[in-house]
Amino acid sequence: MAATATAQAREEVPVARPAFPPPPATARPIDRDAWIAAFRHVRDETERRAAPLSPEDQQVQSMADASPTKWHRAHTTWFFEQFLLQPMVTGYTAFDERFFFLFNSYYVQAGPRAPRISRGLVTRPTCDEVAAYRAHIDRAVAALIAEAPADKLAEIVATLEIGLHHEQQHQELMLTDILHAFAQNPLLPAYDESWRWPALSQRPGTVALDGGVTQMGHAGEGFHFDNEEPRHDVLLRPVGLSRALVTNGEWLEFMQDGGYAKAELWLSDGFVAAQSEGWEAPGYWRQRDGVWSSMTLAGLKPVDPALPVTHVSYYEADAFARWAGRDLPTEAEWEAASGSLDAAFGHVWQWTRSAYSAYPGYRPLPGALGEYNGKFMVSQFVLRGDSVATPEGHSRPTYRNFFYPHQRWQFTGLRLSHYGA
Amino acid sequence: MAATATAQAREEVPVARPAFPPPPATARPIDRDAWIAAFRHVRDETERRAAPLSPEDQQVQSMADASPTKWHRAHTTWFFEQFLLQPMVTGYTAFDERFFFLFNSYYVQAGPRAPRISRGLVTRPTCDEVAAYRAHIDRAVAALIAEAPADKLAEIVATLEIGLHHEQQHQELMLTDILHAFAQNPLLPAYDESWRWPALSQRPGTVALDGGVTQMGHAGEGFHFDNEEPRHDVLLRPVGLSRALVTNGEWLEFMQDGGYAKAELWLSDGFVAAQSEGWEAPGYWRQRDGVWSSMTLAGLKPVDPALPVTHVSYYEADAFARWAGRDLPTEAEWEAASGSLDAAFGHVWQWTRSAYSAYPGYRPLPGALGEYNGKFMVSQFVLRGDSVATPEGHSRPTYRNFFYPHQRWQFTGLRLSHYGA
Amino acid sequence: MAATATAQAREEVPVARPAFPPPPATARPIDRDAWIAAFRHVRDETERRAAPLSPEDQQVQSMADASPTKWHRAHTTWFFEQFLLQPMVTGYTAFDERFFFLFNSYYVQAGPRAPRISRGLVTRPTCDEVAAYRAHIDRAVAALIAEAPADKLAEIVATLEIGLHHEQQHQELMLTDILHAFAQNPLLPAYDESWRWPALSQRPGTVALDGGVTQMGHAGEGFHFDNEEPRHDVLLRPVGLSRALVTNGEWLEFMQDGGYAKAELWLSDGFVAAQSEGWEAPGYWRQRDGVWSSMTLAGLKPVDPALPVTHVSYYEADAFARWAGRDLPTEAEWEAASGSLDAAFGHVWQWTRSAYSAYPGYRPLPGALGEYNGKFMVSQFVLRGDSVATPEGHSRPTYRNFFYPHQRWQFTGLRLSHYGA
Amino acid sequence: MAATATAQAREEVPVARPAFPPPPATARPIDRDAWIAAFRHVRDETERRAAPLSPEDQQVQSMADASPTKWHRAHTTWFFEQFLLQPMVTGYTAFDERFFFLFNSYYVQAGPRAPRISRGLVTRPTCDEVAAYRAHIDRAVAALIAEAPADKLAEIVATLEIGLHHEQQHQELMLTDILHAFAQNPLLPAYDESWRWPALSQRPGTVALDGGVTQMGHAGEGFHFDNEEPRHDVLLRPVGLSRALVTNGEWLEFMQDGGYAKAELWLSDGFVAAQSEGWEAPGYWRQRDGVWSSMTLAGLKPVDPALPVTHVSYYEADAFARWAGRDLPTEAEWEAASGSLDAAFGHVWQWTRSAYSAYPGYRPLPGALGEYNGKFMVSQFVLRGDSVATPEGHSRPTYRNFFYPHQRWQFTGLRLSHYGA
Repeated sequence: MAATATAQAREEVPVARPAFPPPPATARPIDRDAWIAAFRHVRDETERRAAPLSPEDQQVQSMADASPTKWHRAHTTWFFEQFLLQPMVTGYTAFDERFFFLFNSYYVQAGPRAPRISRGLVTRPTCDEVAAYRAHIDRAVAALIAEAPADKLAEIVATLEIGLHHEQQHQELMLTDILHAFAQNPLLPAYDESWRWPALSQRPGTVALDGGVTQMGHAGEGFHFDNEEPRHDVLLRPVGLSRALVTNGEWLEFMQDGGYAKAELWLSDGFVAAQSEGWEAPGYWRQRDGVWSSMTLAGLKPVDPALPVTHVSYYEADAFARWAGRDLPTEAEWEAASGSLDAAFGHVWQWTRSAYSAYPGYRPLPGALGEYNGKFMVSQFVLRGDSVATPEGHSRPTYRNFFYPHQRWQFTGLRLSHYGA
Repeated sequence: MAATATAQAREEVPVARPAFPPPPATARPIDRDAWIAAFRHVRDETERRAAPLSPEDQQVQSMADASPTKWHRAHTTWFFEQFLLQPMVTGYTAFDERFFFLFNSYYVQAGPRAPRISRGLVTRPTCDEVAAYRAHIDRAVAALIAEAPADKLAEIVATLEIGLHHEQQHQELMLTDILHAFAQNPLLPAYDESWRWPALSQRPGTVALDGGVTQMGHAGEGFHFDNEEPRHDVLLRPVGLSRALVTNGEWLEFMQDGGYAKAELWLSDGFVAAQSEGWEAPGYWRQRDGVWSSMTLAGLKPVDPALPVTHVSYYEADAFARWAGRDLPTEAEWEAASGSLDAAFGHVWQWTRSAYSAYPGYRPLPGALGEYNGKFMVSQFVLRGDSVATPEGHSRPTYRNFFYPHQRWQFTGLRLSHYGA
Repeated sequence: MAATATAQAREEVPVARPAFPPPPATARPIDRDAWIAAFRHVRDETERRAAPLSPEDQQVQSMADASPTKWHRAHTTWFFEQFLLQPMVTGYTAFDERFFFLFNSYYVQAGPRAPRISRGLVTRPTCDEVAAYRAHIDRAVAALIAEAPADKLAEIVATLEIGLHHEQQHQELMLTDILHAFAQNPLLPAYDESWRWPALSQRPGTVALDGGVTQMGHAGEGFHFDNEEPRHDVLLRPVGLSRALVTNGEWLEFMQDGGYAKAELWLSDGFVAAQSEGWEAPGYWRQRDGVWSSMTLAGLKPVDPALPVTHVSYYEADAFARWAGRDLPTEAEWEAASGSLDAAFGHVWQWTRSAYSAYPGYRPLPGALGEYNGKFMVSQFVLRGDSVATPEGHSRPTYRNFFYPHQRWQFTGLRLSHYGA
Repeated sequence: MAATATAQAREEVPVARPAFPPPPATARPIDRDAWIAAFRHVRDETERRAAPLSPEDQQVQSMADASPTKWHRAHTTWFFEQFLLQPMVTGYTAFDERFFFLFNSYYVQAGPRAPRISRGLVTRPTCDEVAAYRAHIDRAVAALIAEAPADKLAEIVATLEIGLHHEQQHQELMLTDILHAFAQNPLLPAYDESWRWPALSQRPGTVALDGGVTQMGHAGEGFHFDNEEPRHDVLLRPVGLSRALVTNGEWLEFMQDGGYAKAELWLSDGFVAAQSEGWEAPGYWRQRDGVWSSMTLAGLKPVDPALPVTHVSYYEADAFARWAGRDLPTEAEWEAASGSLDAAFGHVWQWTRSAYSAYPGYRPLPGALGEYNGKFMVSQFVLRGDSVATPEGHSRPTYRNFFYPHQRWQFTGLRLSHYGA
């Protein structure tokens, strides 16, 4: 779907350089037109992703970890109103004062919030009203970019840039969340009947890394989140990373070998989770007459052994690696090898064995936006790469995604490594 | 709302006798036109009640006890397809085979069911598709009534009659369930801005019943549920029942006297519920600046001391009665006095102190419809009368409603009694 | 066990009339010696029941519904200190002020209480210290009875009498609670290796009751709880009660017929409980190599088909009755027939189909003792008779026991009835 | 207590070199007498720690994370029977076959286990029977060491050594678990009235570490757990570690500054835990009349501002560090600086900011003992040093303890660090 939608986008905006990513917010002079184009590009992509969904579809919240499509559309809009329009537009009048409360997600410093679990209960405003909200904010933001005094522009594009990347993160969640919702419906409806997994070509073998001190983390002008900084020295051991992602076919071998039932392969917490949740296959897999199918954005489809396995938790990835006599790479190893890996991007997020934590010397952004990343640095694991649901222009080798070790509703897979290669 | 909607209905169907209730199913000869008119009347009322609600509103299930509007519309339709069309129409083709699973509620003998709590997750079929389902079944049922062989007609109208009363029960739930959903929304939207509580005129004093053996339960031709039978002897003590319902004003006195905090007034389970749920007023009440308002079908409105209190649980009703030095009547007492009570109907269901159980000699209906009432005869209490949300023509003095003692999202209130009057 | 212990007691106290029950508290003149003998008799029986248990055994609380043996010993002692010594002994000095808090159970009006679930965490005072507490209170109570001014004596014996019956109730719980604890221990230890179920002789056939107005409830001088009053008229239908209790053999037929899996036999709440708790036999039954055994006070023993079934919940009893095409009797029917039933006493409590509620005109005792019975009158069902664990002299035909419909750790069984006999 | 008990131990065993630790298991020739002395030393210390506790005290399990004293005594004994006697003694007869099931903790490969949460329900065997079990195994192990063929001795002492360190870990838990149990008792009993926190002398200022590659992890002959290996290169940044532990006085400043209520200081999961658990001070602290006291092994005592803060979770330690503008050190930093720190040992475990994970190249022990450490390497944080409850001879600079970030019933405190010192 993502690929299809973006292809349409390209046709409609046939410029020499893609509208996204825009020039870095730090580039000078500031190109107002490029920023307006980037803004429109991202905002349109959100609506494109929502387009196949009925108002009923957009209302549903199928679990606490997921959010309704309508909420994603409204919350990403709120971000611009809260952090851009309200501070930067003199005498700004809110579209609806109550939305500041209703569509805040977790920014404690931005004021009170509705409880996360009740997002699915907010039937008003309707989808149409949210569309009006989006249109209103779109106009106001475009006007602000076009007309703001030059001395304010740097601050404006700095926040705008964060808002665009923030919205892209929610674009990914729109797909993973509706897939979860549809998987709960006995009718197993398709988000897009024509959706297909992108073509995959993987080579066998490993990418060998020499040991020694190298650097990781982001440097330079391009956009990045605070958690990618500071770029710093790390010490690598000699290690080999598989060029290829683990596939469904390999996962079936693990299953056939009783992998889900062998306690000795699992972390203790992981085995408890697997038993209590009844895991015996990746998320969304179901067996009928001995054949495995999987719920996808195109509905229920037979499992293709050649495609990368996805919807596996960290616990499962870790058990699989132990079964295979291999490891999961650290995030430093992944980043160092990323240029040489197959399918590093465009398929599945790849679990690393690195607990999510601050880089040495990390300092969060000031103010409410400082809550963006730092306060989640406990009990989660880093994933690298991106997924089939990630919008174009959002990814980079230093990007750090993170989830709890039991979660598996994202497009999460794995790549193996081993020492002494 | 109910009153308004029904008023409109009357203008549109200006017949000498109201379309509902139809002649008893046992009346002969069977009047096909009257049954078609009754069927259309009930089916239209469902749609009238759904009309103010957006697709998003109709999707939401705000708690396990409540159901989405869309589900109510589909489930009442399923009833006719499952129990009338499928058995009675030769070669009947289902509208959609999957709906037999999707819209069964609790009829174990009618086949497997989707879990109750996940009704709000079923975004497909959409509201429009449910409307098409309704229209299809409406046509098929009307045709069946019009064209069925005469020797099948008695069986058809017997099931049809149950289906109509079943649908009316769901009409009531449509209002109570959406009120609960809207009360969870921080915006507190109104179902109908113009909705008003019906005028209430209550006399002071009591209706005195002499003791002795009398009869209770339903007899005669008119429609009634299996749990109203058999009519049987009961022994009454001399007792007085208040003519009037307990009002909001009286409830405020109970609150001001610390009623919610005095353990000695409460059943032990009731006090635990009140403490753990944080009850300090009836459901949907909230206080701002010392003034109490209540969420209603017209949105948040100031509490009117003259109106009957509603959204109180059995536990609260019982504590109030003890505080007042009174009792709640038994269902036999209520039924015996019902002809002389004010506001017995049209306002609030009235908790009795009778645990819901089978009348002596009770036997449920045969087959899946036998699951209608009997299997719930434990741990619930009987309520008598009806409520502002009950559709016209649905009520009668022998009607037995029942809820668990902690539930309060229905329009539930109370009337006091005392012995030795 | 109970029988054995009481037999020993008789040898030790070889009086013409048994020490318990004492003369009614209302009898005049008040016989101080008889009351002291009754007090010692009851207090000794508690210690006899605790004697086979180690300090470790006496410490354990195996679920929220159960209490540690040590706690039963202390709480029954607290009752006399709180309600008898403290009010009646001038200048009374508490054994330990902290015990007023520690050993109160649910008497809200008697002051704050430790949370019920944490009774098993209170390792100090030790069993030895509780024994010292008991001895201290025993001396003080005996002295009070012997030496109180004559004008106080009536009030003293009134409270004393309640305290003795209260302690007997806890004597029963001591056995049922330790049986539950031992059943959790993989070693399945025996409370008393020599314990045997009392001999049972049952006749087939039914006791027929004519319909009409009769009376139920307690009247006269003998001790009874407040919930047995007032004696009042009830209307009976013609009904037949089985002379015999349902046996293990009959229950095995129900099981072999798939009774636990047939939803149509069950109350809806009951079937949910059976499924979620995994019930497929009475409590404490376990199957090995196709043979059923049951955990008893003598340890694990083969199920004897001739003995009455026990450790069944109301839900199970109700399903069994439906399977048998019979009913459970009402408590009025049981009481009216009790003189003609086999095994009415001495074996198992017998579930009735009567929800536990107040008799018409019921008023609880004044003060904290008023919390004894009335506040539990919701969501429970009445059981009649008594059980193998009930101490001698505690039972009578008007006695009303009550438990929730899912509970089954008591010695609970059933007797069938049917109308139209 | 630990200090006192060990002081007694020294008097009773007045040898030139302490009995524990014994020579490394790899030392040759194997000194049978030294191993027997070490074994007795450790076994005696367990009994010394249990001695002040009644059978009731030893029975209780106050939460799932804690275990009964009796269970600790039996489980540590089981370890020697399961892993030493059964494999190494030809024709070994179990003390009681059922104990293999009853006292296994989490070793999946050693066979089935009783559920952890039900340890407190196992009242039989009694404390006396467990004492007999211990004595029996003590004799058998001593005999095995004394009499085993020389060619088996190396394997025997290798397992024995693990068993001794394992038992010492449980010695620490015996104190932390009973402290938790006593803190639930409204009487707040003391484990040992004479227990005192050891004298503490701390210097201000920091220990500065230069950056660069250094080594961490264990090397050499002395005993260590598998998780301390392999010794490997790590890259340090320049950093300063406080010489002193954070004190109660400093923690009171954090509290007075509203630290527990300022969301911006906390990890998101940590703030949720603090709110839902109602944390407003370290564990076991309680305030009366404005004065803070703390439950200790000597009972309730006033908080001493000069002593190290303890019973704080990782979440709290992290929030405190943020409030102080400092960090928690990594475990590599702690280990590198450990020789220069004050109170590194003997007071409180010190939270590091390092998630517990495998050192690069880590491989667990073969067989069931391989479950010792590796399977817990997720979602926990490393603590370094040891605590006032740790037995003498158990600690070393490479030792890695680990707990979940919400846990605080251990003696857990913290030491700050900062970069750019």
